[in-house]
Amino acid sequence: MEYGQTALPSHTGSVGQEIYALASEIFPLCRSITGQGVRDTLDILACYIPLERRSVRTDERLFDWTVPKEWVIRDAFIKDEAGRRIVDFHACNLHVVSYSTPVHRRMPLEELRRHIHTLPDQPHLIPYRTSYYAESWGFCMAHEQLEALSPGIYEVRIDSELKDGRLDYGELVVPGTSGREFLLSAHVCHPSLANDNCSGLALLAILARQLRGMDTRYTYRFIFAPGTIGALAWLAQNEQRLHLIDMGLVISCVGDAGGPTYKRSRRGNTFIDRAVEHVLKHCGRKAEIRDFSPYGYDERQYCSPGFNLPVGLFQHSPFGEFPEYHTSADNLDFIAPEHLERAYRTLAEVIRVAEGNWTPLNLSPKGEPQLGRRGLYGSTGGDKAAADGAMAMLWVLNLADGTHTLLDIAERAGLPFARIAEAAGRLKEKGLLAEAAPPTSSSWQEAI
Amino acid sequence: MEYGQTALPSHTGSVGQEIYALASEIFPLCRSITGQGVRDTLDILACYIPLERRSVRTDERLFDWTVPKEWVIRDAFIKDEAGRRIVDFHACNLHVVSYSTPVHRRMPLEELRRHIHTLPDQPHLIPYRTSYYAESWGFCMAHEQLEALSPGIYEVRIDSELKDGRLDYGELVVPGTSGREFLLSAHVCHPSLANDNCSGLALLAILARQLRGMDTRYTYRFIFAPGTIGALAWLAQNEQRLHLIDMGLVISCVGDAGGPTYKRSRRGNTFIDRAVEHVLKHCGRKAEIRDFSPYGYDERQYCSPGFNLPVGLFQHSPFGEFPEYHTSADNLDFIAPEHLERAYRTLAEVIRVAEGNWTPLNLSPKGEPQLGRRGLYGSTGGDKAAADGAMAMLWVLNLADGTHTLLDIAERAGLPFARIAEAAGRLKEKGLLAEAAPPTSSSWQEAI
Amino acid sequence: MEYGQTALPSHTGSVGQEIYALASEIFPLCRSITGQGVRDTLDILACYIPLERRSVRTDERLFDWTVPKEWVIRDAFIKDEAGRRIVDFHACNLHVVSYSTPVHRRMPLEELRRHIHTLPDQPHLIPYRTSYYAESWGFCMAHEQLEALSPGIYEVRIDSELKDGRLDYGELVVPGTSGREFLLSAHVCHPSLANDNCSGLALLAILARQLRGMDTRYTYRFIFAPGTIGALAWLAQNEQRLHLIDMGLVISCVGDAGGPTYKRSRRGNTFIDRAVEHVLKHCGRKAEIRDFSPYGYDERQYCSPGFNLPVGLFQHSPFGEFPEYHTSADNLDFIAPEHLERAYRTLAEVIRVAEGNWTPLNLSPKGEPQLGRRGLYGSTGGDKAAADGAMAMLWVLNLADGTHTLLDIAERAGLPFARIAEAAGRLKEKGLLAEAAPPTSSSWQEAI
Repeated sequence: MEYGQTALPSHTGSVGQEIYALASEIFPLCRSITGQGVRDTLDILACYIPLERRSVRTDERLFDWTVPKEWVIRDAFIKDEAGRRIVDFHACNLHVVSYSTPVHRRMPLEELRRHIHTLPDQPHLIPYRTSYYAESWGFCMAHEQLEALSPGIYEVRIDSELKDGRLDYGELVVPGTSGREFLLSAHVCHPSLANDNCSGLALLAILARQLRGMDTRYTYRFIFAPGTIGALAWLAQNEQRLHLIDMGLVISCVGDAGGPTYKRSRRGNTFIDRAVEHVLKHCGRKAEIRDFSPYGYDERQYCSPGFNLPVGLFQHSPFGEFPEYHTSADNLDFIAPEHLERAYRTLAEVIRVAEGNWTPLNLSPKGEPQLGRRGLYGSTGGDKAAADGAMAMLWVLNLADGTHTLLDIAERAGLPFARIAEAAGRLKEKGLLAEAAPPTSSSWQEAI
Repeated sequence: MEYGQTALPSHTGSVGQEIYALASEIFPLCRSITGQGVRDTLDILACYIPLERRSVRTDERLFDWTVPKEWVIRDAFIKDEAGRRIVDFHACNLHVVSYSTPVHRRMPLEELRRHIHTLPDQPHLIPYRTSYYAESWGFCMAHEQLEALSPGIYEVRIDSELKDGRLDYGELVVPGTSGREFLLSAHVCHPSLANDNCSGLALLAILARQLRGMDTRYTYRFIFAPGTIGALAWLAQNEQRLHLIDMGLVISCVGDAGGPTYKRSRRGNTFIDRAVEHVLKHCGRKAEIRDFSPYGYDERQYCSPGFNLPVGLFQHSPFGEFPEYHTSADNLDFIAPEHLERAYRTLAEVIRVAEGNWTPLNLSPKGEPQLGRRGLYGSTGGDKAAADGAMAMLWVLNLADGTHTLLDIAERAGLPFARIAEAAGRLKEKGLLAEAAPPTSSSWQEAI
Repeated sequence: MEYGQTALPSHTGSVGQEIYALASEIFPLCRSITGQGVRDTLDILACYIPLERRSVRTDERLFDWTVPKEWVIRDAFIKDEAGRRIVDFHACNLHVVSYSTPVHRRMPLEELRRHIHTLPDQPHLIPYRTSYYAESWGFCMAHEQLEALSPGIYEVRIDSELKDGRLDYGELVVPGTSGREFLLSAHVCHPSLANDNCSGLALLAILARQLRGMDTRYTYRFIFAPGTIGALAWLAQNEQRLHLIDMGLVISCVGDAGGPTYKRSRRGNTFIDRAVEHVLKHCGRKAEIRDFSPYGYDERQYCSPGFNLPVGLFQHSPFGEFPEYHTSADNLDFIAPEHLERAYRTLAEVIRVAEGNWTPLNLSPKGEPQLGRRGLYGSTGGDKAAADGAMAMLWVLNLADGTHTLLDIAERAGLPFARIAEAAGRLKEKGLLAEAAPPTSSSWQEAI
């Protein structure tokens, strides 16, 4: 409950710059679902927060899946007959299909074309493609470049390796007083794509650093893991503690100018769904709220029927629906400090709702208590405008029957949670409210 | 059930004139939450109905409140240097802030201004202001008049008194056969404001007089009490009988040309809410239905969480949203007999629904009964228009399974209650329907 | 479950022609609620399907009704003074009011007019009128013809008879494996009206013939009965087996170019309601879904409160709302093979949903199972379009927690049932799904 008074809400601009700087730092690395790029990224995040490294070994069984071999990528290029690198992994790591097997051959253009991915509708952009679980190799390039290639023999080289190794991910736990958990998860497997998901990784790292300095009710558990297989690794290693999770969010694509967009958890009306929707309703922009669907990021795993965790997805522009998505245009120019800061503030407000929610009980429930003699109400009557300031208090008092949390009241009043919480605080201070038995985890999660 | 055949619905125009005449009679009095103006108003109402006077003494405790001293106001004025009354309580009782403490001083304009309330956006109108629970004094005047005042010394006098006395209110009970109650409440504390609330007081008095001549199922309890503190007085004196109240309405601002507007009870879907919404849906004007909010008239007290009575608010234009509200423009020109009559008819129709609702049981539930041989159905088939006349009967028969009241059926059929009730009456007469056990109070109140 | 692979969906155009041909064959007959026209119609239908004849005798009691005398109609005409048949039953059987008592008289025009029904707003059309339960006689004719009649003496003859006899209807049962029933009902009492209801009779006969060649889970019970009294006869004779009916549809007006229109059962959200609404949502036309109302065809009887069967009404244009309704313009030009075929395909799809619905259980519910290694998922990642093909599978897996049927999943996914069922079939084949205990009848019916 100290949360409201601590540093989180006091940022004034620099936090967006910090997140952007961190996103820029990790942007160049060639991440995939395994390998050195992931480890290098976790190393950078560990400069900001005391990240714990976890790993699972190649061939380890994770539910229905098996950990794939570790991918090593050293170089990849296509050279023309003059020996010029016309496609160069070191210039842009999107050029090589992630998890490409090694190849070093000369081949005619027509054969090479079968291994090349382009975007005919966005001819100047390089797409992002992967082939994690089916061994093959390939290159990605701008369609206009492909079209301009002359027939002839090309030298193709991917200096890669698939070897027994491990899958890495990072975890950080910021303990709270209640033992109940708030999960925050971002995927660490995409190479040089700024919005998807350098933005999410950087935002969560900065948010985690900030939360470490605070007294919180919830325990905040941050997961930085490769998509799908990394989330499954964490789930497999933590299955016995999943019952502690009261809510969670997957974070991705939070650096662009669009959105915000929230995709509900599979259950659809858990506390996190209501809290995010409430915050977005009052965020000053037109937010889009979507029902759960089983395609997306790691909410797919968290919300699979065997776990069914109350985890939603927070984004700015929704993945797959902005033209830069999974292309070389998702670069550092596509994200901006102001948008990262906006996402940060949204998450901070969601956390404020989670931390600051309680169930008030009106100790003077018969009629309205006389606010005036407590200095809570203007002394001149008749002027309706004067009542506006008291509306949050009137709502709290009217609904403080022990069955409504502050979030319930804020929703029904159509007022921001912060105003309702502030009013409840004043009323409690004046002895007009008590705190009803705090809601249990399950009642929160099921509450409508 | 006799109700439908009695005088209430047979009025043809004069009732609006009657209500207007009574509103005009009480308009000039200077009401406040206590004092002679309230008593004089109750005296006039008592010429129409055998009103019972109730009172509580100064300093009596009413839940969280204490009855304030009684306010006596004899005169109030501002005189200019020439000794002319430029503001005169006897010209308009809105000029003095209600509950002003006595004052008699000379003061320069700049000091006087601090005690003057105006409406800069409506410069020709005098506002209505009160200061019940904080001792102070003040005047209200037109902004343009204030602006025109010359600097100089003004004589200010408020010949008032705050003394131990009592708070008065009026009550009338029109007994019905069932012992269950319908509460109708209007506030009696506003001075010369015609819509707010001479209209409500007069309408309820005329309605009460009318109901006294009828056989009703419900007991109708009319409360004419000062806002907030008067309602609390009644609640405190009747706490043990509140369980008898099946429904109620607060009535205010029913003389203007706008609306109708209905604000739901806190519970939101009780019988009164459904009955009023049903009547307004078929009233021929676009009605506005609003959810409960904790600001307004005495529904605030009736719907406080410790009572949570099924009481809504019926108005024409909603308070605070018409420009004449709480100004000298809320005068007898602002209300009209035709609008008062419209409000009266709406309430009469709501009462008809309450009185005429019952739960039919189809005694021939397998297939449709043969209406034709009972003279209830046109004998020529094939013409769809012919069926329209039978729709109300078909709806009643189809839903008369013992779980639907006539109001349920009217809502589902989209037909006015009166047509459904008439059809049910004919079917019962023909032996096709029986009356299922009448709904208990609680089932009514919880019904959806 | 074999259903999906059988002949029903494989039709390619000829079925519409077949239905139209049958409708044309029965169109000329003069049907009424009893009599030779009904028997002749059933004879023709019996050439297509092994129809069983049922009957009830005149004066037999059917719930609140009594079977009327049988109507015999041999001839009817109006002759002018020159002896010309200006109105001739043999030219158009709509000319005589159905159930007209015999008459043979000469009368002046002014007297005759009282027995003549016309449509002043559609002056060139002959209306359809009946007088089943009140003995009288009458003629129907074009208004413009009536207007052109010269004053004078007319010879009026209706060679009819009302005699003790019987009421006939037809029934066909196509047995399924489960013992649970799907009722399909069409009225056989209208004379030469093509859409209302030669279209429905012909469609159900062809559908029944088709279903007889298939293995089905449901038993399909087809009723071809006179309106109201025929449905009541069937209900009276089958009251002890009504509990077997899981769903049903009344079929009428399915040959015109409009609609489709679905009127929900009285319960409103039973399986048949959801199945039809789902199919119509994906039918490629704008469908209209209406709540139950107690006026219409025999769903009035099936949905009377004493039976309350889950039976809806399927039509193209809704009865009573197209100008040709109950007039001589509802002829064979008003219906067309393509529209009959469209209705047939809609019903076939509804049957597919009923037959193909089951409750899947995800056998790998923790995280998504790895579809890729089973060949169920494209091996190249990053391209969102590639995921579209997998959406149906992802939805099935995500919701296959034993509480969702395939229809539930299709509704939530917003995908056609066929795609969901196909995906579930593939997943089951791969061992990823089992079939949860099949839903019982009652759980289906109550499911939301």
